[in-house]
Amino acid sequence: MTKQIYRRRQTVRPTAHSGEPTNGPLTAEELQLAVRNHSMPLEALRSEITPPGLHYILTHFDIPYIDEDAWHLRIGGAVRRSLEINLKALRRDPVISVPVTLECAGNGRSLLRPRPLSQPWRLEAVGTAVWTGVPLAYLLAHAGLEDDAVEVVFTGADAGVQGGVTHQYARSLPIKEAMRPDVVLAYEMNGSALPPQHGFPLRLVVPGWYGMASVKWLESIQVVTHPFEGFQQSVAYLYQRDANDAGTPVTHIRVRSLMIPPGIPDFFTRSRVLPPGPVLLRGRAWSGEGAVKRVEVGIDGKWLPAHLEQPSAPFAWCEWTLPWVADPGEHELACRATDATGAVQPLEQAWNYQGMSNNAVQRVKVSVQ
Amino acid sequence: MTKQIYRRRQTVRPTAHSGEPTNGPLTAEELQLAVRNHSMPLEALRSEITPPGLHYILTHFDIPYIDEDAWHLRIGGAVRRSLEINLKALRRDPVISVPVTLECAGNGRSLLRPRPLSQPWRLEAVGTAVWTGVPLAYLLAHAGLEDDAVEVVFTGADAGVQGGVTHQYARSLPIKEAMRPDVVLAYEMNGSALPPQHGFPLRLVVPGWYGMASVKWLESIQVVTHPFEGFQQSVAYLYQRDANDAGTPVTHIRVRSLMIPPGIPDFFTRSRVLPPGPVLLRGRAWSGEGAVKRVEVGIDGKWLPAHLEQPSAPFAWCEWTLPWVADPGEHELACRATDATGAVQPLEQAWNYQGMSNNAVQRVKVSVQ
Repeated sequence: MTKQIYRRRQTVRPTAHSGEPTNGPLTAEELQLAVRNHSMPLEALRSEITPPGLHYILTHFDIPYIDEDAWHLRIGGAVRRSLEINLKALRRDPVISVPVTLECAGNGRSLLRPRPLSQPWRLEAVGTAVWTGVPLAYLLAHAGLEDDAVEVVFTGADAGVQGGVTHQYARSLPIKEAMRPDVVLAYEMNGSALPPQHGFPLRLVVPGWYGMASVKWLESIQVVTHPFEGFQQSVAYLYQRDANDAGTPVTHIRVRSLMIPPGIPDFFTRSRVLPPGPVLLRGRAWSGEGAVKRVEVGIDGKWLPAHLEQPSAPFAWCEWTLPWVADPGEHELACRATDATGAVQPLEQAWNYQGMSNNAVQRVKVSVQ
Repeated sequence: MTKQIYRRRQTVRPTAHSGEPTNGPLTAEELQLAVRNHSMPLEALRSEITPPGLHYILTHFDIPYIDEDAWHLRIGGAVRRSLEINLKALRRDPVISVPVTLECAGNGRSLLRPRPLSQPWRLEAVGTAVWTGVPLAYLLAHAGLEDDAVEVVFTGADAGVQGGVTHQYARSLPIKEAMRPDVVLAYEMNGSALPPQHGFPLRLVVPGWYGMASVKWLESIQVVTHPFEGFQQSVAYLYQRDANDAGTPVTHIRVRSLMIPPGIPDFFTRSRVLPPGPVLLRGRAWSGEGAVKRVEVGIDGKWLPAHLEQPSAPFAWCEWTLPWVADPGEHELACRATDATGAVQPLEQAWNYQGMSNNAVQRVKVSVQ
């Protein structure tokens, strides 16, 4: 719980990023973010459930320290009964476990030209976990939504400054999304208490949405009668053409597939070497907009259909495989998924100002020798 | 277990890094490494034992997949009885649990000028865990060292190319270090099975040495009668003036302290803001060469003695605290530890070619407002 109040008069027009996108070299600020926030090494795509410590993490501010015994969740606003619930009480409520693939909305940002200045993800800001807790809809029904409720605002304990605005991290969901039966207030990740960096003691998990919706370190849930206009809702996480574009909100995860790079890496360049002969190309694919229907693997520009496994849950990734007989020489491998809406990963990424939802096909160069 | 053999004729003189140190901007290769390898966010210094998933990780190559049922450890070379042991058998052997602070030898590298081209750590390549397993000395005694044994070579399952040399990661210890009672072949980290990225199913942990000595994903332990000359021993992890300097080996962790940056951060710049008034400055200090005897906290250049707690084990970090009353304005905080050998952290880092063992004092700028 952040009891201290940090407020400054807002003196600059808030923007999500610090400075205009650049074609210049990586900055010291980007490196600071890259070392704080964790990617999932692509070899972890082998696991249906990402092993502990390998799931991606993006923490806007600091990981807050929460005293479990003093902590409670406040539910209020446009509800019939305001609630204050501690963890012990939450654990007595109905429980669901949902396997969910979460991906950062900024995944792939550092590959854009020009490059928006923020967390410089490459491809690996993803992970899948089983989240266990109370269905949000159960608690909202228990509190009783007023008729004029339009959104639910989730506020975390994590506080900081972004775009000149001091705030606690907060995001909203429309009522319809909040009442989905699979949206969970999770107190366990893969059967253990949430680790600090994943939102201990309680976080929201919104299957199918990019990670920014799944607010960590929850302190309060407020039902509101007007759309929420907090920084992380109305300034950050927008598709914008430029700084002056009002933009549209980032919501669901776009279809994507990734491959485990085959062979062995060079330590510094990460270029791949493998021996000639049969190799099973494999990876996973997911979409927040509809089931993955097809994965194609590109080998030197020729696309072949991969075998697709069923996912363990609607918003969990599915495995794909393709046997390949590698012949000596230099090759470029790629993978490309299509979902039930017909959306397919682009070969070249469409650009937007904040570098959001980059799902261009991954390309892996390998040297067979 | 890496059954495939990857061999190339060595056509270049091996060097630890790719290219000469640079004053230029960060490269794409460094960013790739920064996103793969995980730092410990400094707010995790609050915990005596680093929470799961926040301990630093450096993986030279890929995290290998190991089939626990097929895995066994081979102990051989200059011993009276070669051994092959599976995990079940290892778990029947005597067991020790050792709290250990591990730090990457390259921690701080990205702050050097010129900057050696490798994993671009800032300050946070550190973590503390309780490692549980079999004392190495017990198994070596069981195997029986031959009289002419000089070193013990540990080989992991992780394979790749570095400096043009294809190899499995391997390091050696002198017999005297290998026979220390606190060197552990660990199958548990903080009471759970090793996570994949920390060396599942078995790793070496050498308390007091930089992390490169604690070989992960152990496949074999070979006792040798001549000093080991593998890449990670005789090319990487040296203190060198330049590429042609034969260098001296990196071994024990140099004395260091770090501080939890107080207040709240700006998302992008990570600059800190805090309100005026009392604040407890805190952090941890450690040394692989002798107990930490003193930590001083620098406030705008004036050094004050911090209160020091006892560490939980000889090679685990200890907590330090210093109450401070922050007055409005801009301040620079710093911390500096001294160990039992009299070694003290430098104000300016002495440079070496590979960027090893950087323990210069941390400086934290804060704006009190």
